[in-house]
Amino acid sequence: MDFCSATIVRKDAELGDLLSKDLFGHEVVIKGNVHSITDLGEIKFITLRKREGLIQCVADDLTLKKLPAIKEGMSVTITGTLRKEERARGGIEITIKEIDILSEPKMSMPLSISKWKLNTSLEAKLDYRTVSLRNIRERAKFKIQEGIERAFRQYLESQGFTGIHTPKIGAKGAEGGANIFKLDYFHRPAVLAQSPQFYKQIMVGVFDRVYEVGPVFRAEKHNTKRHLNEYTSLDFEMGFIEDFSELMEMETGFLKYMVELLKKDYSKEIKILNVELPVIDKIPCIRFDEVKSLVSKEYNRQIKSPYDLEPEEESLIGKYFKEKYNSDFVFVTHYPSKKRPFYAMDDPDDETYTLSFDLLYNGMEVTTGGQRIHDYDMLRDKIRRRGMQTDGLEKYLETFKYGMPPHGGLGAGLERLTMQLLGEDNVRATTLFPRDMSRLVP
Amino acid sequence: MDFCSATIVRKDAELGDLLSKDLFGHEVVIKGNVHSITDLGEIKFITLRKREGLIQCVADDLTLKKLPAIKEGMSVTITGTLRKEERARGGIEITIKEIDILSEPKMSMPLSISKWKLNTSLEAKLDYRTVSLRNIRERAKFKIQEGIERAFRQYLESQGFTGIHTPKIGAKGAEGGANIFKLDYFHRPAVLAQSPQFYKQIMVGVFDRVYEVGPVFRAEKHNTKRHLNEYTSLDFEMGFIEDFSELMEMETGFLKYMVELLKKDYSKEIKILNVELPVIDKIPCIRFDEVKSLVSKEYNRQIKSPYDLEPEEESLIGKYFKEKYNSDFVFVTHYPSKKRPFYAMDDPDDETYTLSFDLLYNGMEVTTGGQRIHDYDMLRDKIRRRGMQTDGLEKYLETFKYGMPPHGGLGAGLERLTMQLLGEDNVRATTLFPRDMSRLVP
Repeated sequence: MDFCSATIVRKDAELGDLLSKDLFGHEVVIKGNVHSITDLGEIKFITLRKREGLIQCVADDLTLKKLPAIKEGMSVTITGTLRKEERARGGIEITIKEIDILSEPKMSMPLSISKWKLNTSLEAKLDYRTVSLRNIRERAKFKIQEGIERAFRQYLESQGFTGIHTPKIGAKGAEGGANIFKLDYFHRPAVLAQSPQFYKQIMVGVFDRVYEVGPVFRAEKHNTKRHLNEYTSLDFEMGFIEDFSELMEMETGFLKYMVELLKKDYSKEIKILNVELPVIDKIPCIRFDEVKSLVSKEYNRQIKSPYDLEPEEESLIGKYFKEKYNSDFVFVTHYPSKKRPFYAMDDPDDETYTLSFDLLYNGMEVTTGGQRIHDYDMLRDKIRRRGMQTDGLEKYLETFKYGMPPHGGLGAGLERLTMQLLGEDNVRATTLFPRDMSRLVP
Repeated sequence: MDFCSATIVRKDAELGDLLSKDLFGHEVVIKGNVHSITDLGEIKFITLRKREGLIQCVADDLTLKKLPAIKEGMSVTITGTLRKEERARGGIEITIKEIDILSEPKMSMPLSISKWKLNTSLEAKLDYRTVSLRNIRERAKFKIQEGIERAFRQYLESQGFTGIHTPKIGAKGAEGGANIFKLDYFHRPAVLAQSPQFYKQIMVGVFDRVYEVGPVFRAEKHNTKRHLNEYTSLDFEMGFIEDFSELMEMETGFLKYMVELLKKDYSKEIKILNVELPVIDKIPCIRFDEVKSLVSKEYNRQIKSPYDLEPEEESLIGKYFKEKYNSDFVFVTHYPSKKRPFYAMDDPDDETYTLSFDLLYNGMEVTTGGQRIHDYDMLRDKIRRRGMQTDGLEKYLETFKYGMPPHGGLGAGLERLTMQLLGEDNVRATTLFPRDMSRLVP
């Protein structure tokens, strides 16, 4: 009988092993993908791509002639002597003794992924996504994205939140409207979740504070640089709030934590991408109506849509607060009730506004949040006043019948947050495999 | 201008605060949901439910007459004196001075959620899911589930894995077949992902080691105790493996880590549910064909389906290895090629078997994994031999054209893993909001 006891004995080293251990002058074994080959006639440099980065291997022509022929895209095992080499990346180099080919490509790369900057259109990058991501800078973007998500989880867990998973197939969409993907569920009409909104509210009654990271689906028919039809939503919802500002404070806490975590665990990628992390001290908060007229006055711009912020207005708000307050972030509060979903809590001081907010990051909305209605009668009343149907909302409403604490929460798009952090100008650049009106593959 | 700087000043205490600080004899403020009321005539006990557990508050009739009337399901703020009280849960009690009502239910609870064990059918629990989860034991199950997921993430991150998100809407299903939910994607046919299989393999070429936790969708038309039509899949895929046993070793490492994390961070819930955590030293590994005949001989049972394990066989295998090796887990290896998907690597020693495995936990499959084909020609050849079409697989196949390292991985169902850990007999009991052939709400 064989047994597994979680012991993996591997002869080959990772980059971290080579740097941390005193292996200089000794024989090492390393596995990786052949990222590039530089042929200088007498000697050849073979750069291997590993998960932690690149490592340079070198051999003279005489040695190489006795070894299997190498080409880019191969996966190989290289045995050789580890040496300090100041001119090489990371200060180390391996003098090749043996090469063992693990896997061979059928064709040469369609893009020069070994170039430092992948000088090609976003379209081409996305068409060849399965290989363009092998570029060191391309993949670093998604390592940063992982860091943002880890920060979200870790910070919320430290604040007493419980991680949950709620269903993505349901009977009716959270926000209503036409922007819902429909499917046939065993001969019953069903929809894909536009957000975990109803479920996370329900779960406030159970765990008080909950968060979810998962896909959301929006059948919106616009093709902009900031919209996706499927994206990863960072959601939280918390009970017993005294004021909706607690939600903004919680998000500020997450953002501060995020910057620290990125500095600590992702410094390599920060450097690769030359990212300037935001300095978050205190984030200005301004009312929707105030900022609307402020921007109008400041930039001599006519107000066209009084109930929402246009992308250009968001951009000007970002500019204004960067210049006046040196802040990359602004909370815009008290959005008009008209433009917020039925479950948004109206401001008791003026019911045409809601106790809600958006967070703008470098002039673009990255979060929508606010206090929700927790009283059953108030919720029913608002649904009635809006002339909405309650079909499919029965179980959601039932929750309030049996009592719910005051609560609120927010949702943030992971890809858009990454986009703004990295200074990309298209959200597809920070999405592994984007889904938009024209992209269903890869 | 207001600012947010991540400072939330709350007067009210959480349970942890009350236990860790020296507040005995002092006035405290606490918010929570009224879980139960015990009326002893002269005095009343009000038990509040908070996210960390329950706390008993007490008042005499005279005091209560001056305060707002309380009922179950309310959310309240209670001000009072904290006292040691050995007879109370957690050894503390609050003598009520003031009560402030934050929210009121419209109706009394449809289930006795304040009972220790919710003595009702699973059907009723699921029908009233939004409130049945408020029961202390019900919610503890999902806290444990969170722990399993956190262990998966933390362990894999410690092993150099990168967390990813891959799209759930796609052009074609990973495993093919009829069990796919179909939807209309802007007038193009699309499907919901049955697994992140293709994408995680693609990402091995990028990050070497990747994991994903996300929903998967299976339009399977059976209504069993162990199947869901939407579930949360724990997936990983790793490159440069020398042998598929490395995958099993990695999973064993995760399971050991999981037990330790549950002991450390979830001891409260372990106690509430009276869970006996598995002792994982070394997990036996046995070939499919061997275990098949072993069970047949040992339990005098005819082999009916030679290419797969029937649920009853899995159960007997579990029993056998528990009795003979005192192991709750068994790896069954080398499944017949016939029953594994096209991308499974056949055993070079006997191509009718694959370099694959299932993990059985207490006699039920909780994981399927194995080595994958990494060579383009071999993959094309296997597709051809199976008479499969390659439509929709073009981008997947392209990845292999440009070179891929040897790799393999696994997928595990989070809900099923939780079910087996907790000794539940229906996977719906460990799913927040299950989706099956009849359940689309709540």
